[in-house]
Amino acid sequence: MYENTYVLSLSCTNRPGIVAAVSNKLLELGGNITDAQQFDDLTTGRFFSRIEFETRGPQLPVQRLRDRLAAVLDPLEANWHARHLNERKRILLLVSKQDHCLADLLYRQRTGELRAEIAGIISNHPQTVHSSVGLGDIPYFHMPVDPENKPKQEEKLLALTGELQVNLVVLARYMQVLSDPLCSELAGWCINIHHSFLPGFKGAKPYHQAYDRGVKLIGATAHYVTGELDEGPIITQDVEPTSHRDTPGSLARKGRDIERRVLASAVHHHLEDRVFLNGKTTVVFPE
Amino acid sequence: MYENTYVLSLSCTNRPGIVAAVSNKLLELGGNITDAQQFDDLTTGRFFSRIEFETRGPQLPVQRLRDRLAAVLDPLEANWHARHLNERKRILLLVSKQDHCLADLLYRQRTGELRAEIAGIISNHPQTVHSSVGLGDIPYFHMPVDPENKPKQEEKLLALTGELQVNLVVLARYMQVLSDPLCSELAGWCINIHHSFLPGFKGAKPYHQAYDRGVKLIGATAHYVTGELDEGPIITQDVEPTSHRDTPGSLARKGRDIERRVLASAVHHHLEDRVFLNGKTTVVFPE
Amino acid sequence: MYENTYVLSLSCTNRPGIVAAVSNKLLELGGNITDAQQFDDLTTGRFFSRIEFETRGPQLPVQRLRDRLAAVLDPLEANWHARHLNERKRILLLVSKQDHCLADLLYRQRTGELRAEIAGIISNHPQTVHSSVGLGDIPYFHMPVDPENKPKQEEKLLALTGELQVNLVVLARYMQVLSDPLCSELAGWCINIHHSFLPGFKGAKPYHQAYDRGVKLIGATAHYVTGELDEGPIITQDVEPTSHRDTPGSLARKGRDIERRVLASAVHHHLEDRVFLNGKTTVVFPE
Amino acid sequence: MYENTYVLSLSCTNRPGIVAAVSNKLLELGGNITDAQQFDDLTTGRFFSRIEFETRGPQLPVQRLRDRLAAVLDPLEANWHARHLNERKRILLLVSKQDHCLADLLYRQRTGELRAEIAGIISNHPQTVHSSVGLGDIPYFHMPVDPENKPKQEEKLLALTGELQVNLVVLARYMQVLSDPLCSELAGWCINIHHSFLPGFKGAKPYHQAYDRGVKLIGATAHYVTGELDEGPIITQDVEPTSHRDTPGSLARKGRDIERRVLASAVHHHLEDRVFLNGKTTVVFPE
Repeated sequence: MYENTYVLSLSCTNRPGIVAAVSNKLLELGGNITDAQQFDDLTTGRFFSRIEFETRGPQLPVQRLRDRLAAVLDPLEANWHARHLNERKRILLLVSKQDHCLADLLYRQRTGELRAEIAGIISNHPQTVHSSVGLGDIPYFHMPVDPENKPKQEEKLLALTGELQVNLVVLARYMQVLSDPLCSELAGWCINIHHSFLPGFKGAKPYHQAYDRGVKLIGATAHYVTGELDEGPIITQDVEPTSHRDTPGSLARKGRDIERRVLASAVHHHLEDRVFLNGKTTVVFPE
Repeated sequence: MYENTYVLSLSCTNRPGIVAAVSNKLLELGGNITDAQQFDDLTTGRFFSRIEFETRGPQLPVQRLRDRLAAVLDPLEANWHARHLNERKRILLLVSKQDHCLADLLYRQRTGELRAEIAGIISNHPQTVHSSVGLGDIPYFHMPVDPENKPKQEEKLLALTGELQVNLVVLARYMQVLSDPLCSELAGWCINIHHSFLPGFKGAKPYHQAYDRGVKLIGATAHYVTGELDEGPIITQDVEPTSHRDTPGSLARKGRDIERRVLASAVHHHLEDRVFLNGKTTVVFPE
Repeated sequence: MYENTYVLSLSCTNRPGIVAAVSNKLLELGGNITDAQQFDDLTTGRFFSRIEFETRGPQLPVQRLRDRLAAVLDPLEANWHARHLNERKRILLLVSKQDHCLADLLYRQRTGELRAEIAGIISNHPQTVHSSVGLGDIPYFHMPVDPENKPKQEEKLLALTGELQVNLVVLARYMQVLSDPLCSELAGWCINIHHSFLPGFKGAKPYHQAYDRGVKLIGATAHYVTGELDEGPIITQDVEPTSHRDTPGSLARKGRDIERRVLASAVHHHLEDRVFLNGKTTVVFPE
Repeated sequence: MYENTYVLSLSCTNRPGIVAAVSNKLLELGGNITDAQQFDDLTTGRFFSRIEFETRGPQLPVQRLRDRLAAVLDPLEANWHARHLNERKRILLLVSKQDHCLADLLYRQRTGELRAEIAGIISNHPQTVHSSVGLGDIPYFHMPVDPENKPKQEEKLLALTGELQVNLVVLARYMQVLSDPLCSELAGWCINIHHSFLPGFKGAKPYHQAYDRGVKLIGATAHYVTGELDEGPIITQDVEPTSHRDTPGSLARKGRDIERRVLASAVHHHLEDRVFLNGKTTVVFPE
């Protein structure tokens, strides 16, 4: 279906002529642009673009495509990436006991909604905890964490991302705080779901915090992991109304629905190269 | 239309028999309950109820109604209030330069949507600033505030609430911080609109804060005023999606729409005796 | 947890004294009301109420409770039902090939969010189609339907609801039209999810219809089944924004999320006796 | 502020090279693209693009800009339009008795949110009906309509659009059905607000229809006027939740809020050249 469709994502300092240069090069390569979105951040002078294009005739090897694009993009000192649209990224999922996000992501992957491979699952709980979630033959790594073994377990985690050729790490309600060095390693390719509408209710037990404060909406936030806990660039957020009838328990139940759809949306957009880091924020090109 | 309809609102410590006692008394008074909502806070053991009832036949004088209800409600040590539904409360509006909330509330009052009288408007800017809003003959008090005259102006404000027989003070984007003593005086009968989804972005310039943090939704919060700034019990909140295209300016523009509808909703519910204070939170019975 | 908590739901023609009569009776039975919601339909003169109450001391047998309530409720010619809150209803799920709603309901049942038993699954497709969903040992009935065998299969279906002691039938994207007689049998205890925001886009292929019409929001509707297709009383609806970028395929994908949460919400509210039929509409007491 | 910023909107049959041709031309003209959005309708093969660009140095006369662009765009047989961003369109408002949309649009125009001139107001009711809505010195035309004078009044209306140099006609709750010939004349430059979530509840009294059907959300739809009533291409839609407590009256009240923000959003997007007709639907580039 997507055999001859490619996606090019790029960001660089804005200057006149970028669009002309890129579109001329694509034309020269026989590419027909089928979707293009662009954003110019007038505050930072940064340019962001995502272009889908198809080529007719014989398939263009990706490496050759990249070489040809490099000729025009490297002089712009652009961050850029080009790939076949049908190339599938590989996801490593980290979970604790609660598995609503895990179950949801696996279901979406099976139905083809998330075009990715599940490379593996890491949990600080044994596989039996998730017995009702049909894990199939996905490699499962039971890696309990305590203050003492944490550095070693994180080292192992990082090694696994290499061995399993992971492109994206998803903290799907993984209730462990990652160390600063690990966060730095994962910056830009690790998505976390926080169960509040950030920046409200950072830290632990956000639904209890929301109950105590008496808010009339609760939410969830998917963001990239950075060194600062709950401070990474936000990708997706959503909320639902609540009322005085809600308890911390019912808020948590309603919240699970928000969490799983917010996380799935963030992962989906990331997988399609629609999310760009822009300082402490993100640019997200809608589908 | 509402000549023979009354509303009774009450809160007290929960115990068996409250509903029976009240409904027996209303039956005895010839009242037919047309709407009743009740909430039992299982955490605090507090009981809240709002009852609308009509009487057929000759009108029941409110004072006599109150005397009869007191016989059953006072022994419960209840906070309670009974009134004709057609009795109109009197609102004092406080505004600064931005008048989108002012214009909106006045429009809703004129169309009868807000069943209240506008007792007056206080602003730290002269009336000419709001010349396009059509203030009619509503008393307008230009009361500029500076650090020196603030105590005196607040005294005057408080005196005005008495003179104008005000039941509700609305800070309709009044960009002045009220003093602690004034806040205490107004506790429970003063509603503020804060232009963020609290508890995120307290304090000044929330739209700039939201822009810097890169949130994907912005919101507004209507709350009762208490001593602590932006910490009062929340009545209504709402949000709208934003994107990387938004600037502090466009966020402020989108926010104005959220602010005015959130504030109008809070005022509307307060005017209909649908909002109860419950510690640091509120109980809001929907319409 | 709910050992001594009961729920009473009732509807009848409105008249003065109902609340007094019921609350007096509950008081007499040693019941303490912990939650009560009431609605008086001023157009039809119908009264609806849902009351949760707990009894302290030894447990009150449900049958005795019912006998005592009958004394006050039967003279009102009320439709009423009283039960232990911990009594679990039994659900029969009907599905075709698409199983996002099935997977979602099963997940919610396992986590305890839906307090019910899954009595069985009927599908016009073999069980292998749903192999990734983890059906456990839930009885599965493969009942293909064609014009010829339809009356017989429906008879069997109805028989199964008896054998399996089913309280609620859920059409969880069951792509077969039920016959009028079966609809009549199931009226009031069968919930269907329609994949559009009714009354827009009735009938087949609603996402294609939505695409052709260019709507800017799509939705889903959970409703009770009645004789008229897509005309039953609506329980829950929700929508999501769409854009010109959407295709029938992406609308269907987005729609799956709306469908499953709308259906789950309707089932949840039904299971908790929060939904009342009111002519062609419903009364839904929020949680 | 926008002195040197221009907006180019264009649609044409898609083919390779359009983006390259346009961006090369803009570069040649000294233009720096500050915002660009593009959509390729893969079903119809139609290409849509909106480009904002600024020129540095002396201002480029719009006519010269158009001549230069024509050289590249006319061979593409494109529908295109180029203008200064600070050029203000002229709006003619049509209203009946209800003036919530009128009041809202006027307020937004005064605050600069809608960058347009109000060329005039036509109503089938006299100006005194809207006395509380500060109309200032906007020309007001009282044009009552009855079956007999309708053709003549419509002729006069059309003449007024010429005399007042109107670019956009807005039916801001104008409760008269326009004749087919007038609709044809106004196709593409006349926006109507319909008070339901189309295609549900076409025609008269949609809030009564919504009440009778028992929907759990109500909505509003802004669309371009075409010959078929309530069938024009949709620009904006939104909804709000309702409940069994709502009456046709309260639905109408809630609906007014939805109507005014949906209409304002449609007008705003139209004024910024963000809306394109695409057969029976629209392409709307978000802000």
